[in-house]
Amino acid sequence: MKLGALGEDRLLDQILLHLPRGTGQKVFAGSADDCAIVEIPENKKYLVLKTDCVVEGVHFVHGTDASDVGWKAMMRPLSDFAAASAVPHFALVTLIVPQQTNAAWVRELYRGLRRAANRFEVTIVGGETSKTQGPIAIAVSVTGFVEKRRAASRRGGRSGDDLFVTGWLGGALKQKHLKFVARIVESRWLTKNFSIHAMMDLSDGLGSDLPRLARASKVGFDIELENLPVSCGATIDKAISEGEDYELLFAISSQDRTRLEQKWRRKFPKLPLTRIGSLNRKSQIANRKLPGGYVHFQQPR
Amino acid sequence: MKLGALGEDRLLDQILLHLPRGTGQKVFAGSADDCAIVEIPENKKYLVLKTDCVVEGVHFVHGTDASDVGWKAMMRPLSDFAAASAVPHFALVTLIVPQQTNAAWVRELYRGLRRAANRFEVTIVGGETSKTQGPIAIAVSVTGFVEKRRAASRRGGRSGDDLFVTGWLGGALKQKHLKFVARIVESRWLTKNFSIHAMMDLSDGLGSDLPRLARASKVGFDIELENLPVSCGATIDKAISEGEDYELLFAISSQDRTRLEQKWRRKFPKLPLTRIGSLNRKSQIANRKLPGGYVHFQQPR
Repeated sequence: MKLGALGEDRLLDQILLHLPRGTGQKVFAGSADDCAIVEIPENKKYLVLKTDCVVEGVHFVHGTDASDVGWKAMMRPLSDFAAASAVPHFALVTLIVPQQTNAAWVRELYRGLRRAANRFEVTIVGGETSKTQGPIAIAVSVTGFVEKRRAASRRGGRSGDDLFVTGWLGGALKQKHLKFVARIVESRWLTKNFSIHAMMDLSDGLGSDLPRLARASKVGFDIELENLPVSCGATIDKAISEGEDYELLFAISSQDRTRLEQKWRRKFPKLPLTRIGSLNRKSQIANRKLPGGYVHFQQPR
Repeated sequence: MKLGALGEDRLLDQILLHLPRGTGQKVFAGSADDCAIVEIPENKKYLVLKTDCVVEGVHFVHGTDASDVGWKAMMRPLSDFAAASAVPHFALVTLIVPQQTNAAWVRELYRGLRRAANRFEVTIVGGETSKTQGPIAIAVSVTGFVEKRRAASRRGGRSGDDLFVTGWLGGALKQKHLKFVARIVESRWLTKNFSIHAMMDLSDGLGSDLPRLARASKVGFDIELENLPVSCGATIDKAISEGEDYELLFAISSQDRTRLEQKWRRKFPKLPLTRIGSLNRKSQIANRKLPGGYVHFQQPR
C-alpha cells in the first residue's frame, strides 16, 4: 500500500507501536504527542525534544523569501514547545539543498532561522548540510526543559472541560504561515496560572487536530461552530480545515472559565481567547451540529 | 556563488560565525565539532546533541535495502556520539518521502532504525513525516550525556601527540557504509582509561577529516603513509579520500602509547588500533611525505 493512501497518522501509529523503550528512562509524552517529554537523571525538570521539517513544494512554494522559510522552519518546532508549555534552549539545523542553490539564499535562510531562535533566546548549537537532487528541505530539532508539574500533553482532557483556542483560525496560507510567532509566552503564562488539562498547537487545522486531542484524552467533543474565531476574510470551512494556524487549543476545567477569561484579557489584550466548545463522554454523538462535507471532522474512532 | 563551488566547510564557517548564543548557556563544543556539547542547569553532565541525515542519491543509491538505510541513518549521528565519547539516550526521526513510497518500505526502514537504536539502548521518542516531490531523506537527531571530564572534542590535540585510528580505512562504499557499528564502546573505554586530547569520527575520509582536527587544535600533523591500516582490497588513495569509514581518529600523549597498545589488544583483540603519525607545530611543512594528487590532504590554512 502506498503512503498517500494510508495517511500519516495511521502509518505512524503502526510504526510507533513497535518502537523500543530504552532502559531506565521514563517517557512522559512520546511519539503520539507534540513533543517528546522524558525524565532524565539528576534533573528536576523534564527534557523536551522535538524535530520538524519544511520541504519546498509542501510547506513553502519555490521563490518564497529565504528568510521567511528559515523563520517558519524554526517556529514550527517552537510551536510544539508551546503546546508542551516547555522552554526551548538549543536547536540543530539539518539543511538539504541542491548544489546549484545560491549561497546568498542559504545565508538569508539562516538569517530567518537566527531571528526566530533569538526571539526565544534559543541557541543554534549545530547543523549539518547535505546536497540533494531534489527540492530544498530544512529539518530543525529543538531541545529544552519543562517543570514536571507544568508539562502539557494531549492526554489529560476530561469530560466537561471547556475548550479554548487562541487567536484567529483560517486564512493562514495567505501570509501568516511564514510570519507566525509560536505561542510560548501565552502557554507559559497559562500553566503558571492555571491547571491546563490538555494542550496542543493547531498545525493541520482544528478539524484534524481536535480529534487527536480528544482521542489522546479518551473523550469526545462538542464544538459550537457559531463561536469559532474565524480570521477576517476566511470561511468556517477554512478555519476548520486549512491548517497552519499555529494557535493553541487547550482543555481546562469549566470552573476556571471566568477567572481565565478575565485574567487573559488583562494580560493579552490584543490576542483573543475563545471558548469554542467542550469535551464530553466519548459515546455521545457530538459532531451532530457540523454541516456535511467536513470529512476530517469526525469523532475519534 | 553556488554552494557546489563554495564547499560545505566554508559555507558553514561563514554562517556559523553569526549564530547567536543564548544567555546563561555554556557551550563546550559547538557547530564546528562532531556534536554540540552544552552545560545545563542542575546537571553534573554535559548535554550532547547531534543531527545528521541520509539522502537518496547521495548517501545511498535507489534500491538499497530499506533496513540498511535505516541502520545507516541512525548509526551516523551515533558515530558522532562516539567521537564525543558521549552516551546516546534519545532519538527523533524526520522522514521525508514521496507519497508513492510503499508503506512496507517505510516499515523496513524503521526496522533498521530500531535495530541500530537498540544496539546502544537508544529510545526513539518521536518523529515527523513529510511528503516530497524529490528523493527520500531521513534526518535523525540524537540527545545524550557525557561526564564533563570525559567529553572529547576536536580541539585538545597538542604538538607531539600520537595519532591513532581504529579499524581499517578505505573500501567502505562497497558494503561497510551500510553495516558499520558506531565506535561508542571503544570510545567510552578510551576516555575511561586514558586522557584523550582530541577525537573525531572519520566520515569524509582521513584526508579531509584529519586537517579539521588539526585546525581545531591549532597544530600541524605528520602522517606515516606506510603505516596506514588500508582495508583489504583498497588502495592508499581510497583509505585517504573515499570516506564513510566511521572509525575513530584520536590524539593522545606519546607517553601513553605503550600502555594504550597493550591494553587495547587485550580489550579489543579483533579490532586493530594503529598509530598513523603525530601532531606537530603548525609552522612545520608536515605533509612533505604525501604523494601528489591528494588535493584534500593539506595542512590547515
